[in-house]
Amino acid sequence: MQGKYRALWLNDDGVLEVIDQTKLPFVYETVILDTTEKVVSAIKDMTVRGAGVIGSVAAFGISIAAREVESYEALHVKAKLIRESRPTAVNLMWAVDTMMGVLKKSSNLVEDAKKLAIELNDKEAIESQNIANYGCDIIEDILQKKQKKEINILTHCNAGWLAVIDEGTALAPIYEAQRRGIDVHVWVDETRPRNQGASLSAWELTQSGIKHTIIADNTGGHLMQHGMVDMVITGADRVSANGDVANKIGTYLKALAAKDNNIPFYVAIPISTFDFAIRDGVKEIPIELRSEDEVKFMRGVDSNGDVKEVRITPENSPAMNYGFDVTPARLITGLITDRGVCEADYEKIQEKFRG
Amino acid sequence: MQGKYRALWLNDDGVLEVIDQTKLPFVYETVILDTTEKVVSAIKDMTVRGAGVIGSVAAFGISIAAREVESYEALHVKAKLIRESRPTAVNLMWAVDTMMGVLKKSSNLVEDAKKLAIELNDKEAIESQNIANYGCDIIEDILQKKQKKEINILTHCNAGWLAVIDEGTALAPIYEAQRRGIDVHVWVDETRPRNQGASLSAWELTQSGIKHTIIADNTGGHLMQHGMVDMVITGADRVSANGDVANKIGTYLKALAAKDNNIPFYVAIPISTFDFAIRDGVKEIPIELRSEDEVKFMRGVDSNGDVKEVRITPENSPAMNYGFDVTPARLITGLITDRGVCEADYEKIQEKFRG
Repeated sequence: MQGKYRALWLNDDGVLEVIDQTKLPFVYETVILDTTEKVVSAIKDMTVRGAGVIGSVAAFGISIAAREVESYEALHVKAKLIRESRPTAVNLMWAVDTMMGVLKKSSNLVEDAKKLAIELNDKEAIESQNIANYGCDIIEDILQKKQKKEINILTHCNAGWLAVIDEGTALAPIYEAQRRGIDVHVWVDETRPRNQGASLSAWELTQSGIKHTIIADNTGGHLMQHGMVDMVITGADRVSANGDVANKIGTYLKALAAKDNNIPFYVAIPISTFDFAIRDGVKEIPIELRSEDEVKFMRGVDSNGDVKEVRITPENSPAMNYGFDVTPARLITGLITDRGVCEADYEKIQEKFRG
Repeated sequence: MQGKYRALWLNDDGVLEVIDQTKLPFVYETVILDTTEKVVSAIKDMTVRGAGVIGSVAAFGISIAAREVESYEALHVKAKLIRESRPTAVNLMWAVDTMMGVLKKSSNLVEDAKKLAIELNDKEAIESQNIANYGCDIIEDILQKKQKKEINILTHCNAGWLAVIDEGTALAPIYEAQRRGIDVHVWVDETRPRNQGASLSAWELTQSGIKHTIIADNTGGHLMQHGMVDMVITGADRVSANGDVANKIGTYLKALAAKDNNIPFYVAIPISTFDFAIRDGVKEIPIELRSEDEVKFMRGVDSNGDVKEVRITPENSPAMNYGFDVTPARLITGLITDRGVCEADYEKIQEKFRG
C-alpha cells in the first residue's frame, strides 16, 4: 500500500487508520479503527465513505474482527454487521463476501485476513490506475475531435482518492490528465445534502493543484446548454447487469442534461461495482434513506475559524433524504472500467466481463 | 392592498415596508424602504426577491423616487437605477416601464406615481387569484384521471406570496387546493445556493399548515422515477415569445426529469412575465451571474438559536453562481396564466395573448 494520498492505511503499529471525512475540508484529522464496532460506526456515520473505500475498510474490518473471535462461525456474525452497515454500495458486500469466502478454508484467521485485506487493497490501487489510463485516453480523444486545448469535466459527488484507493475512479482520469500535461478544469457539483463535492472533491483537487470551480447542483444543466462542459465523469456505488448506475443522488439529473445536450456521460468503476444479479437497476437496486438531519443541518467554519453546525430550514418542516438515485443505462455513453471501456448494455457487459 | 400575508405593504405612515427575506426562516423582520437607494439595494441584495415582488417594489420605488426629484427627466435617471438592479426578471423592467410610460403625461408625479403603484399591485393580486383557480382546476383533473385522493406537487425555488402578491404563482394553485379541501403535499426543492425553497417556501407552507417535505435539489429525479410526484409547478422570471422559461437555476433539470417520467410540468405566470421581444429564450435571455459567496457561505441558526454564517467550501476553491437557467418550451406541459392555461408554443402564445 502506497501512494501520495490515501483515505486509509495501516499505521506504524499495524493498525487501521483513516481520514475522518466528516471533518474535511475544515479539519484534517485521522481516526484509529481497531474494533468491529468502530469499523461499523465509521461506515454508518460516513467517517469513511465512497464505494471503494467502504469496501477497503470493510476488508480490514474483517481482519480486525478476526482478532476478536475464536472461530469462523463467530467471525461470520461480525462480518454480517459490517456487510449491513450501508445498503447501496455493492463493493461493501463484495469485499466482505470475498474475504469470508477465502477465509472459510483458513487455519489462521488473523494472519490470513490481514494478508488478504492488504492484497485486495493493492489490487484496487492497480484498478484505479487502469481506470485513470482508459479514462484519460477518452479525454484525449475528445480534445482531438473538438480541436481544443482545455477540457472541462463535470463531476458529481466525490469519486477521488478519498473514495477509492489510490486515485479514485471518476477523478483518476483527471489526475492522469494532469500527468500527461493536459489543461484540465473540473466543474465540481456541490452534491447536497452532504456536500461531498464542495468539501471532498474540491479539497482533493486543491491538494493536487488542479483547476476547478464549485457549482450548486442546480447549475450543471445551464453550463451544458452553453457549451461549458465537454464531458461528465462520475463514479458509482452499484451497476446492474444491464448497465443501470446507482450513484449519489442527483447523478440521474446530470445524465439527463448531458443527453439533452449531446455531451458524453461516463461512469468510472472497478469491476467489483457490478452486481450481475440485478437485471433492472432502476427497479431493483435498494436506495438508502438517510436521516433528514443531513438536509436540515449544515456544517462549516464561522468567522473565528471554528467548525459549527447550523440549522438551515424552518424548525418544523420535515425533510427526506435519499442517498442515491439510479441512472438508466440509455443515458450513459460508456463505463470506464479497469479492464477497458464498455457500453452500458446487457449483452456488451456480459460479453466483456462474464465471457 | 390586502391579503393575510404580503411581502410588501404601505404602512400606517404610508411608507413602503417589506419583509426582509434574507433573514427568513430564522427571523421575521421588516425593513422600511423610503429612498431610491434603499429600494435598489433591497432588490440587489435580495432583501426582496421573486419576480413579482421585485416588480411590485420597483413600482413603489418609482413613487419613492418621484419624491426625490423635480422633473420627469430627473425621475428617469432614478428609474434607470431601479430598472437595472437585477437583469433576469422581466417584471422589474415591465413595472418600471409601465410606471414611466403613464407618468410621462402626469402633472403631479408624486401623487400619480403612488396611485399607479397601488393600482399595479392590486392588479397583480387579482392575477394571482386567477392563476390559483386555473392551476387548481388542473390539480383536480390530474386527481380525477389518476383516481387519487392526494396530490404530490414538486416545486422549485419560491413562487409563493413572498414572491408575487397576493398568493404567488406556483404556490397559488396549492393555496387554492387547500381552500377546495384537496389533500395536497408539496415536495420543496431546497434551491441552492440561496435556499429559497428550504427557507422561504417551507416557511410559507408552514404558516398555512400545508403538508410539505424539504428535499435536496438532487432528489426530484429519483422521486419522479418512483411515482412519488404527480405534477411539477414552478414560477418564472421571464418567458420568451416561444415559451422558453427563465427561472431559478435548476428548473431545467427538473423539467428534463419530468419529461423523462411523463409527469406534467407547469409554469405559473402573470402575463407581465412574457418578453415578446425574445424569440429564443435559451439563447437570448440574459442570465444573472451572482457572487460566488452565495455558494461558499451558508446562513443558519446555531444550537443557541443565533443566526450564523459559515463557510462550507475549502478556503481557496473558487465557485461560480448563475442565478437562473432556461427551460426549453418543448419540456413544458403548459403555462398557467391569469388568462387561462396556454401551451408553451410560439403560435399558441401569439394567438392567446397578442391576438
